[in-house]
Amino acid sequence: MSFAASLYEKAQPIWEAGYNHPFVQGIGDGSLEKSKFQFFMKQDYLYLIDYARLFALGTLKGNDLQTMSTFSKLLHATLNVEMDLHRAYAKRLGISAEELEAIEPAATTLAYTSYMLNVAQRGSLLDLIAAVLPCTWSYYEIGVKLKGIPGASDHPFYGEWIKLYASDEFKELADWLIQMLDEEAKGLSSKEKAKLETIFLTTSRLENEFWDMAYNERMWNYNG
Amino acid sequence: MSFAASLYEKAQPIWEAGYNHPFVQGIGDGSLEKSKFQFFMKQDYLYLIDYARLFALGTLKGNDLQTMSTFSKLLHATLNVEMDLHRAYAKRLGISAEELEAIEPAATTLAYTSYMLNVAQRGSLLDLIAAVLPCTWSYYEIGVKLKGIPGASDHPFYGEWIKLYASDEFKELADWLIQMLDEEAKGLSSKEKAKLETIFLTTSRLENEFWDMAYNERMWNYNG
Amino acid sequence: MSFAASLYEKAQPIWEAGYNHPFVQGIGDGSLEKSKFQFFMKQDYLYLIDYARLFALGTLKGNDLQTMSTFSKLLHATLNVEMDLHRAYAKRLGISAEELEAIEPAATTLAYTSYMLNVAQRGSLLDLIAAVLPCTWSYYEIGVKLKGIPGASDHPFYGEWIKLYASDEFKELADWLIQMLDEEAKGLSSKEKAKLETIFLTTSRLENEFWDMAYNERMWNYNG
Amino acid sequence: MSFAASLYEKAQPIWEAGYNHPFVQGIGDGSLEKSKFQFFMKQDYLYLIDYARLFALGTLKGNDLQTMSTFSKLLHATLNVEMDLHRAYAKRLGISAEELEAIEPAATTLAYTSYMLNVAQRGSLLDLIAAVLPCTWSYYEIGVKLKGIPGASDHPFYGEWIKLYASDEFKELADWLIQMLDEEAKGLSSKEKAKLETIFLTTSRLENEFWDMAYNERMWNYNG
Repeated sequence: MSFAASLYEKAQPIWEAGYNHPFVQGIGDGSLEKSKFQFFMKQDYLYLIDYARLFALGTLKGNDLQTMSTFSKLLHATLNVEMDLHRAYAKRLGISAEELEAIEPAATTLAYTSYMLNVAQRGSLLDLIAAVLPCTWSYYEIGVKLKGIPGASDHPFYGEWIKLYASDEFKELADWLIQMLDEEAKGLSSKEKAKLETIFLTTSRLENEFWDMAYNERMWNYNG
Repeated sequence: MSFAASLYEKAQPIWEAGYNHPFVQGIGDGSLEKSKFQFFMKQDYLYLIDYARLFALGTLKGNDLQTMSTFSKLLHATLNVEMDLHRAYAKRLGISAEELEAIEPAATTLAYTSYMLNVAQRGSLLDLIAAVLPCTWSYYEIGVKLKGIPGASDHPFYGEWIKLYASDEFKELADWLIQMLDEEAKGLSSKEKAKLETIFLTTSRLENEFWDMAYNERMWNYNG
Repeated sequence: MSFAASLYEKAQPIWEAGYNHPFVQGIGDGSLEKSKFQFFMKQDYLYLIDYARLFALGTLKGNDLQTMSTFSKLLHATLNVEMDLHRAYAKRLGISAEELEAIEPAATTLAYTSYMLNVAQRGSLLDLIAAVLPCTWSYYEIGVKLKGIPGASDHPFYGEWIKLYASDEFKELADWLIQMLDEEAKGLSSKEKAKLETIFLTTSRLENEFWDMAYNERMWNYNG
Repeated sequence: MSFAASLYEKAQPIWEAGYNHPFVQGIGDGSLEKSKFQFFMKQDYLYLIDYARLFALGTLKGNDLQTMSTFSKLLHATLNVEMDLHRAYAKRLGISAEELEAIEPAATTLAYTSYMLNVAQRGSLLDLIAAVLPCTWSYYEIGVKLKGIPGASDHPFYGEWIKLYASDEFKELADWLIQMLDEEAKGLSSKEKAKLETIFLTTSRLENEFWDMAYNERMWNYNG
């Protein structure tokens, strides 16, 4: 079993809980209140900006031209393509460009992006890949599962989201990160693998915290 | 008004809410359940380890020997003095050294330390100081206020905590960071000051999230 | 006078010495021995890889989407366009792709790229811009001066190099960095400006060390 | 053979060349011109400041308290003990404290410290150790060899330097770094080991460039 496959196996209980979260189920059966999805789209916009920074760090830390060049294409695609898609989608959901630019990060968004950026700046390229992989990989799995629900991908609001994350292009991104993780992890010590497993499982849990934040439209736990 | 004083003024509503949090009030009147304080001491142990890393970053980013040397003394004091105090205190609270070494970070602890470490690694020395200052400064203010409550600093469990954070040594640390912030901020552009203000207010809010996490003994929001 | 203009003025003696270096003069009058230019092209290939990492750091440290996006376009252009140009040009000079991939860095190449990457990782976005600007700006000035020499840009080997660095596209890159330096430096303290000046003048000197390294085909000073 | 021992073996030709450099030989037989040693002491002062930053990075990147704490003791010892020794020694060599504070870095000093700081910030803890180890380890070996020369350690100027680097305390520092390299490198992939070898051999060569810079009192190669 490859290293990535072993991480996948250990993360299943967390990813299952994520798929079963009422937010994700609500996208699947179309019952999710629009305000919750709008909250999600706003915080996801901030998340994407920091996700692009992580691809920039991949170029900085890549040890060969091919790795550097692939991360730079991912960065370029995220900043100059995916964010445009996001802005257009947000507009159809009634969120203006001005609103998008003025969003404040919720505590969970700060937790998730800061955790990945801290791990990636302090650690190695492998630490970075272990941190970013759960988001891409689990989104593709959720996209495919939801697409299997009759009518889900035709929903006026949520269909587009389901089709995006179930797409071959998105699968390609996940596959590329999985392949690089397995390539770079060859011959790694068990101590190093344990460290990467902690990172992988932590960002898997932070994915679920992100669904929960959006479902509860929660900026901070304490608003005393 | 100095720059630090202006940040202090803007943070008051958040610091007031922090002082009024039932966790802090419970330390003051001695009513806080011991399990909540044990939860706090464990997560605070992890927090201290990353706080030491921030002092190490201060040495890395300091532009003159004096700044580098002072941060190295703070690092040395935190890792090789304060953590021993913490272990001894935890032991008296029934938390063994083994338990301390095996603690898993709660989501809020990850959020707070990752946010500071990300800001400090990505930004300048000033970004780092703006991030770490609220913890030190607000703890000293809370310590002094609680010490003013008759009998609070004699409490068998919480007295020691109150006396530590109301101490002159701790005030010296806060004063040193305040003085360096004002020194380094001289002539700063309003754009730069706005960025530092956002950092200062964010870690002020994360302080309150930390009290709330401990009071609710909350590891994750979602445990699906 | 803008901040960039003030740096330009202070760097003139160094840039003049660079323009008058026999390596640069040899490109202008076509007398430069081919082996020296081949040495230069090989080390410049390694330089470009680290220059791309600096653009990645610009995306990481950029505080707004526009800055991040522009740096990501520069990164994409460097890694996925300029390096192809470089490989093709090297081939016409008799340097195979395999040779390019096997190059060892000379001491001066290590000095220059490591200095910029250290300053950029340790410091702020402004530190990064002050470090990378002399290369782009002085190359454009050298390109325009050499293009003014009758027949220089028609030279079978060196004409292409002169036309590339005297081009409008290349000027656009320099102008963009100059404009961002002036934008970000508004209201900066004199202490901060002095630090940026040191960085700017150091990389200006390292430019001259790079010409000198190539002219003498020097890998290390000491080969005991 | 341990990993550190394998690196030691591969570096011997470079370390031999370093020991045989006229600068080192001149310290041994006392013939070294005082101005060359003064040049060395000034640049070594700047080197020590950045060497302290590397120990700070060791604390930042350490994955356990013991590693963090040991690096913080090394940082504290370097900044708050060794630099005082250096200032006192410099004074006896006729270099005032003011002169020490006003030193400009020579190109080779910039090359060496920037290379280590870039590698350490971009890479992992192991990259950092591989970068800093040649300096400590080769200085101890040179100290012991020179101490074996009759009368060398009684030289009015150079005796103190020889005794410092041949001392048990200094050996302890080298042993600690060697032990940690071997500990952390257990189970490392050959690809990772090759990368660490490149770093180790590069800083070994930069050591020799440092002797050569001092012997020639060379600030820059090109002073056009």
